[in-house]
Amino acid sequence: MPEHTVLFDANNEPVHAPTGTLLSEAARLAGVELNQPCGGQGRCGRCAVQVKSGHVRARSTLRLSPEDVANGYVLACQAVIEGNVAIAVPPQEKIERVLTTDRTVGEIRVPAGYDPVKSQTIRRVNLTLTPPSIDDQTDDWARLRKVLNQKVHRSEFNVSLPLLRQIGGILRQGDWKVSAIVESPPWDCCPDCPAQLVDLKPGHVNDDQPLWGAAIDIGTTTVSLWLVNLLSGEVKAQVAEYNRQITRGEDVISRIMYASKSAEQADEMRELVVAAMNELVERACKRTQVDPADIVKAVVSGNSTMIHLFLGIPANSIRLAPFVTGVNETPIVRARETGLLIHPEASVDCLPGVASYVGADITAGVLSSGVDDSEQITLFMDVGTNGEIVLGSNEWLVTCACSAGPAFEGAGVVDGMRATKGAIEEVWVDGHDYEPTCRVIGNVKPKGLCGSGLISLLAELFLTGVVDKAGHIDLRLPTPRVREGEHGPEYVVAWGAETEHGRDIVITHVDIDNLIRAKAAIYAGFSVLAESVGIPLEMAERVLIGGSFGKYINVEKAVQIGLLPDMPWDKFQFLGNTSVLGGYRALLDRSDRVRVQDIASRMTYIELSADNRFYEAFTSALFLPHTDMAKFPSVADALT
Amino acid sequence: MPEHTVLFDANNEPVHAPTGTLLSEAARLAGVELNQPCGGQGRCGRCAVQVKSGHVRARSTLRLSPEDVANGYVLACQAVIEGNVAIAVPPQEKIERVLTTDRTVGEIRVPAGYDPVKSQTIRRVNLTLTPPSIDDQTDDWARLRKVLNQKVHRSEFNVSLPLLRQIGGILRQGDWKVSAIVESPPWDCCPDCPAQLVDLKPGHVNDDQPLWGAAIDIGTTTVSLWLVNLLSGEVKAQVAEYNRQITRGEDVISRIMYASKSAEQADEMRELVVAAMNELVERACKRTQVDPADIVKAVVSGNSTMIHLFLGIPANSIRLAPFVTGVNETPIVRARETGLLIHPEASVDCLPGVASYVGADITAGVLSSGVDDSEQITLFMDVGTNGEIVLGSNEWLVTCACSAGPAFEGAGVVDGMRATKGAIEEVWVDGHDYEPTCRVIGNVKPKGLCGSGLISLLAELFLTGVVDKAGHIDLRLPTPRVREGEHGPEYVVAWGAETEHGRDIVITHVDIDNLIRAKAAIYAGFSVLAESVGIPLEMAERVLIGGSFGKYINVEKAVQIGLLPDMPWDKFQFLGNTSVLGGYRALLDRSDRVRVQDIASRMTYIELSADNRFYEAFTSALFLPHTDMAKFPSVADALT
Repeated sequence: MPEHTVLFDANNEPVHAPTGTLLSEAARLAGVELNQPCGGQGRCGRCAVQVKSGHVRARSTLRLSPEDVANGYVLACQAVIEGNVAIAVPPQEKIERVLTTDRTVGEIRVPAGYDPVKSQTIRRVNLTLTPPSIDDQTDDWARLRKVLNQKVHRSEFNVSLPLLRQIGGILRQGDWKVSAIVESPPWDCCPDCPAQLVDLKPGHVNDDQPLWGAAIDIGTTTVSLWLVNLLSGEVKAQVAEYNRQITRGEDVISRIMYASKSAEQADEMRELVVAAMNELVERACKRTQVDPADIVKAVVSGNSTMIHLFLGIPANSIRLAPFVTGVNETPIVRARETGLLIHPEASVDCLPGVASYVGADITAGVLSSGVDDSEQITLFMDVGTNGEIVLGSNEWLVTCACSAGPAFEGAGVVDGMRATKGAIEEVWVDGHDYEPTCRVIGNVKPKGLCGSGLISLLAELFLTGVVDKAGHIDLRLPTPRVREGEHGPEYVVAWGAETEHGRDIVITHVDIDNLIRAKAAIYAGFSVLAESVGIPLEMAERVLIGGSFGKYINVEKAVQIGLLPDMPWDKFQFLGNTSVLGGYRALLDRSDRVRVQDIASRMTYIELSADNRFYEAFTSALFLPHTDMAKFPSVADALT
Repeated sequence: MPEHTVLFDANNEPVHAPTGTLLSEAARLAGVELNQPCGGQGRCGRCAVQVKSGHVRARSTLRLSPEDVANGYVLACQAVIEGNVAIAVPPQEKIERVLTTDRTVGEIRVPAGYDPVKSQTIRRVNLTLTPPSIDDQTDDWARLRKVLNQKVHRSEFNVSLPLLRQIGGILRQGDWKVSAIVESPPWDCCPDCPAQLVDLKPGHVNDDQPLWGAAIDIGTTTVSLWLVNLLSGEVKAQVAEYNRQITRGEDVISRIMYASKSAEQADEMRELVVAAMNELVERACKRTQVDPADIVKAVVSGNSTMIHLFLGIPANSIRLAPFVTGVNETPIVRARETGLLIHPEASVDCLPGVASYVGADITAGVLSSGVDDSEQITLFMDVGTNGEIVLGSNEWLVTCACSAGPAFEGAGVVDGMRATKGAIEEVWVDGHDYEPTCRVIGNVKPKGLCGSGLISLLAELFLTGVVDKAGHIDLRLPTPRVREGEHGPEYVVAWGAETEHGRDIVITHVDIDNLIRAKAAIYAGFSVLAESVGIPLEMAERVLIGGSFGKYINVEKAVQIGLLPDMPWDKFQFLGNTSVLGGYRALLDRSDRVRVQDIASRMTYIELSADNRFYEAFTSALFLPHTDMAKFPSVADALT
């Protein structure tokens, strides 16, 4: 196969690749960062590049205008080289960092009566050894084990080879006074189960010195880390960061597809998320003046795809029927095996998931929200890039995942965007002149609509009659805001003169259709769960909403479009990131760690794609708010 | 510090190093192999190099003649650079490969009634899984565990992250038919103890396909490997190879000193022995057409220093009072952690040692010789580079190590050499004219004397009166064979005209002194062991001799110089490499593996350096055969 030269203007060093190489692959080789939110499927159009010289063969030009194509633009993920080429990379859309969860002191309450000695799996002990002598030639490791045994009352200890190599030096450096960190499994099969020696340091350490742990939630969009003093339970820093995998796919499916293409790409995905985690470790540690190597225990939550990609376990089976994970209960691994730059011997404990689309983020969420521990029948939902729902109590738990799509995160919508600066997050529409009033994140000129903005806009358009039950825009209304646009009927939320980029911000009929399908999928999920346990949905005594999306949602509007069930507002509670909170609890308390396991095994997973009830419920929900208005009495009231 | 250029003629690429760098270190950087049998202590003179231009500062010129020094020769381990230099490396003494233990089919008897199902810790099972479906979305790992559990009746399984990453692919590649290799610990703390998943392969494997294991003995001089079919117990290949660490030190002390100089040198020592082991793996596998990756279990024996250097555990405390090891019972590690190129997940189980100088080679030797299992009081000895002795029965076991020095391996003796081609291995001296008759290994012109040759020569010289009780050579005898040499009185074993190198082969007074000190140390060890349990040495009912040295020893001669106690010859038995044999037994049978552990904990170690009885016994033994001739009645008879 002949090799060709590919030169990216962004990078002076040309790369060589054979005929048929994708431009996106060549860019990867050249170290040129291209956004590929759709995972290289040619759907999003964000990896468009301009061919300056030479020839490429484009398999698809979806999302490119005829002018773009005429000007030599191609999608890097859809174009293969056939000779030497020079490529210009236009400035790609950058992710803005306006994460609001980054803060130093949390409002997190330490569990009442937290006692590290009782609850923790890990502890630090000061040890004073009798030095060896001609009369006592016990080997270093046995000498250490003996004293450890007296202190922590375990008979067996595991140690990794790298740490074993250091023990003799540390014992002597500390003149036979050392401090050891020992971890026992959250569950023991017997009293002789070995504990793990995690760390050994010369000299004694004051008992008031903290012992650091990290609770990490790997969200599809955002990675969050809490730095925790394991002795007091206190959260010392909470930091968050975009999951760097975003440039390779917005949603889990795109990422799985990207990672499944080659071993290199799988590794790249693993490294991207690990890099984000390490950035968080560094940031949290800098802020609190903690040495990252002093973090000796980590608990990780996240959806099943995120856990797979983090551990480098192939995730392709998650995407393909019959949708199974590689592993739901991952073994506890050591930080050095994962690339996480904390103490190399720190345990990295990924919490258990239930199914491909109900992962450790949900089991952790059930733990932290206490669904499994209450007599009240609770509906728990985590709507982010996917929508996962749990219905249950201390007696039973059922769960399902709705492929709602990323519409509520602003994707799949012409002017959709994430909830960052410039996003319209709330809209009010005047019932007389149909003029909108918008609230924009950061109080700047708007750039687009985020999820909560879309929900509130759709509810307002529905209540004011701009949009009917079926989601059709009424073009007959006496306002220039409604018009026939490029993509069919649309409503103009902001005129170009008012926007940051000078273009009109609109919501189109297609967008509305997408939003209705998304909300219908979630509502249908509620219905199927309730039906599966034979109770009416209204029997739910409370609705707990986790996930960052939940924080900004307006319940009234969400009920009006039929996304949430029509229940008194005081039954709704927004809990924020329940996944990291659950991770924090499992990090602190071995009984909570065992409880997550118990939750995972207790949860009955209902696969909606195999459930006819789901299709019926989905079809019924493809209206605003629903075919059956009796289910939405408050909305019926508002309409009359 | 100014940098200088060092150019070795053996290597065209000059290296750069600051003032004060040892030439040996510069050679290492340049990749030039220098022999350093003394470990870089300036004692052996084998690293002599010639300074062609430039200036070096030599700290010691021991072992160099005034002519050598005048010609610019220096010891690379004793000379530091002070400017740019050019160095000529004379041809260094090469180790010849005439190892006699390299053979394909052993004479090893498989233990009677060997049943892998009962005895083995490891087994291979064929599994047929129900493929996942929408109605059964169990994750891959749980699906596999479930079927494994039905087959091997264990509830918990450990798996490494690298193997976990492959499971999904293997299951699908085999269309849900796989063969798994599972290993359970030799001892279980409880029935819920996890077993280790070692390997998973797509498809089923016929039950008659072998399952491969390796027993490896790391000797100070020789590394031996037996390739074993774990299903039948059969040894399919036995191979041996010099321990490549020899170039960095002949004895354990020199090697510890070399490894302790820097992390790089420690790592070099580890890599040298691993390279020798990997060469053996390759050779054994080639001969038997086995894939090295199919070796799924390894048991390693060897003295404590060898085990430490192999695992990369600092060994310096072994050398320094109070002589303690880093670890006697090493944890079972995975091959990939050690650099051993067998199955990466294979367990590498180093057998337990007892003390710094009584290592796993001795516990394995006790196991394979059955000392611990017999009512007979047995004296077990392994005389190689060191002399380790065990006295005991099924009721008690005492052990000690005699720092005999490497005299019996031909080191520390002017014309000493290893038992390779050209070594005089047996000598007879005529009682009338004092003329010697020699047997030479390989039937070639002699080059020197190996251990058995030295013992037989010393015995003959003593019996014929050339040497007296105190080891003095009688220069008055009417033969040109005795003379005053450069190093004092000496006896000429072979005239220059008859030798390979054209120089006389002699034994000097100093050599004899060294030999007597060596044999006295060993005999004193016997005495102290017997005394420590309050029995006369003669009560020993048999003497078992392990180690390669033992294979060529002539009992009569060894008794005559007082190395072995004077007992009827039929009480002596030569067992060959009892260390690798013990490793083989532990490899096959979990109860034997547990027994080695039991042996290690039962053995009472007596530290001779702290024992006054030893000095008394040693002093008494500094005569031929002993001060107390009553202990050697057969020698007294021979003299009269």
